[in-house]
Amino acid sequence: MMKRLVAGAALVGLLAAVAFAQFAKPEDAIKYRQAQMVLIVHHFGTMGAVVKGEVAYDAAEFAANAASVEMLAGLPWDAFLAPGSDKGDTRLKDAAIKEPAKFMAAVDAFETETARLVNAADSGELDKIKPQFGAVAQTCSNCHKQYRK
Amino acid sequence: MMKRLVAGAALVGLLAAVAFAQFAKPEDAIKYRQAQMVLIVHHFGTMGAVVKGEVAYDAAEFAANAASVEMLAGLPWDAFLAPGSDKGDTRLKDAAIKEPAKFMAAVDAFETETARLVNAADSGELDKIKPQFGAVAQTCSNCHKQYRK
Repeated sequence: MMKRLVAGAALVGLLAAVAFAQFAKPEDAIKYRQAQMVLIVHHFGTMGAVVKGEVAYDAAEFAANAASVEMLAGLPWDAFLAPGSDKGDTRLKDAAIKEPAKFMAAVDAFETETARLVNAADSGELDKIKPQFGAVAQTCSNCHKQYRK
Repeated sequence: MMKRLVAGAALVGLLAAVAFAQFAKPEDAIKYRQAQMVLIVHHFGTMGAVVKGEVAYDAAEFAANAASVEMLAGLPWDAFLAPGSDKGDTRLKDAAIKEPAKFMAAVDAFETETARLVNAADSGELDKIKPQFGAVAQTCSNCHKQYRK
């Protein structure tokens, strides 16, 4: 899949120069990544309510939410690396822009754990799902700690 | 893929009841679909600049943008069908909510033409890409005409 190729390329920095050029202004990158987060948070939060026992478990719905997060994880992440986009209406620390390879490694961990969550969700077994949901949440938290003000 | 199953289910209205429940408030649905549009418009607009000849054609970059639009098209579209979400900070007409099957058919046309654009982009031939880009743009326009104030 192209998305995997792109993620791989970004990881070693090959795509970086091209990707940066896609955002005409830092504000465009901020808008893009905030939209990306809105969608991820929606699907992840919906699963979270099930994991916490607030909402009844529905296997098909849960699996659909996990699949949506996996798709969203596969979108480009270069909006977080756009020069100057740590200024303005954003909580991004400059650490991501300064060390893109390290940031992309954190993204890669999120993608890996999310793919495992999709597998767990497809099993239909909450006992498998819950710890893997926690593993994904940990990658969110790790990234936010390092890169979010 | 689950996303295909979900899209198919939504098309015949089976998922509708489940999907609605995912948005606690109409504002959440509005926020979700606006984020969805920000991302689609970004990738589609980036391709549009190439098609218009404003930006040089780069086959890998173009194909990555097409793949991103395809992924985004595969996300749930039920945020456009959430009851009450035609009120407030939105341009959605009530037609989508009133006739969900018709709305989902319009979404389906977008998904179909986008999949064809991915194939055209993978060919690396601008002569194949340009008319197919136009076909996708037509599905955007058809939907906006019917459902956007």
